[in-house]
Amino acid sequence: MLGTALREDIRELIERREWDAIREGLSELDPADGAELLSELPEEEHAVVFRLLPRQLLADIFEQLPLEDQVRNVAALSNEQVETVLNEMAPDDRTRLLEELPANVVQRALESLHPEQLRVARRLLGYPEGTAGRVMTPEYVALPALITCAQALKEIRQKARSAETVSSIFLVDERGRLVDDLELSQIVLADPQTTLASLADGSYVAVSATLPQAEVVRLFEKYDRFALPVTDSVGVLVGIITADDVLDVAVREATEDMQKLGGSEALEAPYFDVGVGEMIKKRGGWLAALFLGEMLTASAMGHFEEDIQKAAVVALFVPLIISSGGNSGSQATSIIIRSLALREVTLRDWRKVFSRELTSGLMLGLGLGVIGFLRIVLWNRLGWHDYGGHPYLMGLTVGIALTGVVLAGTVAGSMLPFLLRRLGLDPASASAPFVATLVDVSGLLLYFLVATALLRGTLL
Amino acid sequence: MLGTALREDIRELIERREWDAIREGLSELDPADGAELLSELPEEEHAVVFRLLPRQLLADIFEQLPLEDQVRNVAALSNEQVETVLNEMAPDDRTRLLEELPANVVQRALESLHPEQLRVARRLLGYPEGTAGRVMTPEYVALPALITCAQALKEIRQKARSAETVSSIFLVDERGRLVDDLELSQIVLADPQTTLASLADGSYVAVSATLPQAEVVRLFEKYDRFALPVTDSVGVLVGIITADDVLDVAVREATEDMQKLGGSEALEAPYFDVGVGEMIKKRGGWLAALFLGEMLTASAMGHFEEDIQKAAVVALFVPLIISSGGNSGSQATSIIIRSLALREVTLRDWRKVFSRELTSGLMLGLGLGVIGFLRIVLWNRLGWHDYGGHPYLMGLTVGIALTGVVLAGTVAGSMLPFLLRRLGLDPASASAPFVATLVDVSGLLLYFLVATALLRGTLL
Repeated sequence: MLGTALREDIRELIERREWDAIREGLSELDPADGAELLSELPEEEHAVVFRLLPRQLLADIFEQLPLEDQVRNVAALSNEQVETVLNEMAPDDRTRLLEELPANVVQRALESLHPEQLRVARRLLGYPEGTAGRVMTPEYVALPALITCAQALKEIRQKARSAETVSSIFLVDERGRLVDDLELSQIVLADPQTTLASLADGSYVAVSATLPQAEVVRLFEKYDRFALPVTDSVGVLVGIITADDVLDVAVREATEDMQKLGGSEALEAPYFDVGVGEMIKKRGGWLAALFLGEMLTASAMGHFEEDIQKAAVVALFVPLIISSGGNSGSQATSIIIRSLALREVTLRDWRKVFSRELTSGLMLGLGLGVIGFLRIVLWNRLGWHDYGGHPYLMGLTVGIALTGVVLAGTVAGSMLPFLLRRLGLDPASASAPFVATLVDVSGLLLYFLVATALLRGTLL
Repeated sequence: MLGTALREDIRELIERREWDAIREGLSELDPADGAELLSELPEEEHAVVFRLLPRQLLADIFEQLPLEDQVRNVAALSNEQVETVLNEMAPDDRTRLLEELPANVVQRALESLHPEQLRVARRLLGYPEGTAGRVMTPEYVALPALITCAQALKEIRQKARSAETVSSIFLVDERGRLVDDLELSQIVLADPQTTLASLADGSYVAVSATLPQAEVVRLFEKYDRFALPVTDSVGVLVGIITADDVLDVAVREATEDMQKLGGSEALEAPYFDVGVGEMIKKRGGWLAALFLGEMLTASAMGHFEEDIQKAAVVALFVPLIISSGGNSGSQATSIIIRSLALREVTLRDWRKVFSRELTSGLMLGLGLGVIGFLRIVLWNRLGWHDYGGHPYLMGLTVGIALTGVVLAGTVAGSMLPFLLRRLGLDPASASAPFVATLVDVSGLLLYFLVATALLRGTLL
């Protein structure tokens, strides 16, 4: 990578505050590298560097900054700089920035847009959050089907500057409806006198503007394209989505799901960009909610306090039993949440999943139950514990409870994501800790019910 | 999407076993749709349909089948069909298939390759698993820098058929070393008599063939390209990686990490493609291992059996305390695992993370500790429980234990992924259940130590 040495040089220049040389250097770097350098600078210096940069370079570098740096900078930049940046930015990147700005800043941002760009920005923001419309760009090349390849190349030359890509060319009819898509290479490689129509094979994949972004990721995964056209409800071409933006969407969604699965709110920024206070807030809310739920375990156990008083040995296996339920629930929920996100499994499949997980849960539960039983009998044989003289009954109690708890954990963990989606909520909120908390209370009750049934008259 | 109606038709034809019409229909569909249809068929019919298809269509559709279907089909297809498919497949997709085939089948597969393709396949498989070399394709267009755009277009026309993309063109010197990359559009839009060298700006991003795939994903995310060149240790261009393949890598890696985070092995196939037996195996191993670890809780509590016998009330809070440790550990580990995967955080940052998590853990722990204390005092005031007459001491015990356990969970959950990476293991193995199990045992000991210290002489 040619940029590495240069990047080091600029880093030095920045430390020495040699502003002219910095401008020189930044203009030779890839904007992504420039943005990376910039985001290492203390925030108050961003504005200084921005003032040095020519308009286009400013916009190019700004576009590549991490979203949270963009948001901060919109507040820090002069009105004129904001105007430059927002008007020159790619419309899809701009949408994403506008989504994140606080409401009062959005107003100021929109006012700085030129009429044409304002129209574009408003239209893109008009699509519901999380849909294809919010990640598409209207900067594509669309051509009528009946022109020749030579004419097409002339048109493409003219439109190239304002297009996100010219690698894919879209054919539209007189009403702007999408007819087909072509690769630039097909046009370049064909006889210049051929019409575009004769290159078309009528097979294309289009994305509806209101399609959820997760589905867009699936389409890109399936069809292996670099760009897909986006159409409105009557088939009019309204934008394109490119593979690089879809990659960002896919990575972001997986990150959010994983953080939720772990039982916290999505951080929405890289680890070190989230202040410790913010981090505590994002985690504390769920942690406290789970804690309140978990308090029920104390109440549940309270009902059996006398039994514990009689035979403390019963209490020894409480952590083992509830954690096994939590672990099996965590496995099931993480597998199902991901399968739902990847559309491997849909809401309709819940019965099929239920019956599979019932089988899995039963087998896993029986497996652990047997190990648990053997553990108790073995400890007794080795003389490590006497279990009030009833090792087999104790072993049976623990074994049965384990089977039931693991079964319950597996089924609850697999069904909860379906239930949440059915209620219109995010399945990823069925976090591992959430499922564990659910299973802890029911697992405790189950264990003590089995214990009182089997041990009454002997230990209890 | 034009294909939908057609797809329904073909589905019907398949049900009616009208083979000729099926071939017709499949040749009009996008191969990805054809593959989707095919994978809905019972396996024994795959071979029947394959026999109908012309060579290229067979290869195109095969390439788009889910990997596990490909693996199964290699066993089911005739030698001749395997030969067709493997020789016509894109080299990067073929590498991925060969990676998954059992060793004896790989041998047969390699033998069916023509000498040229065999050379390519062996070279790609020569790179370590999980590196850029394993997802790249050698089917790109490389040109010398000194030819004119007109000459270049002629060359590109000739090479187009055997290239994965001609949207990016790579300039190399006489030794094959990468000099720069150009977009096809730049060449098309330039004066035909200009040399390629004069279009070059010498700034390009190249990927080393041995770079881990996770880093390749980061590069694509950062630089927003459709294709990146791959070079060997001396800068010779050896392949290209395209954004669509990187998307697949990113999605696959996130899926594996999420499944591991949930405490099972990565499934490596869509949910319904994993048999119930296989599913139980993938989950049972970890579940049993965690269970064995969790058995230590019973031993740990066993040491305090007499105390519990004296004051069963102490046992009531065990589930609450250990689950709080588990929950905070689950949050921390999921956040850190993802940050490590995204390279937001690197191994070197462990001290910084440690000090942040120490603060977070302490604050979160104090928060829960206070709630726990208040809960006990409140229950006492309301007359719901008397806590052996010592509600404040009991509340203090639980509060202190909670603070310590949440702190321990947070720190252990955040540091374990670093430790695993340092040992050369996968950080994602620090699953939520694994961390919870660790914290359960230490949490129990902590709780009972605090309890015996504070309650000796009163309750105990």
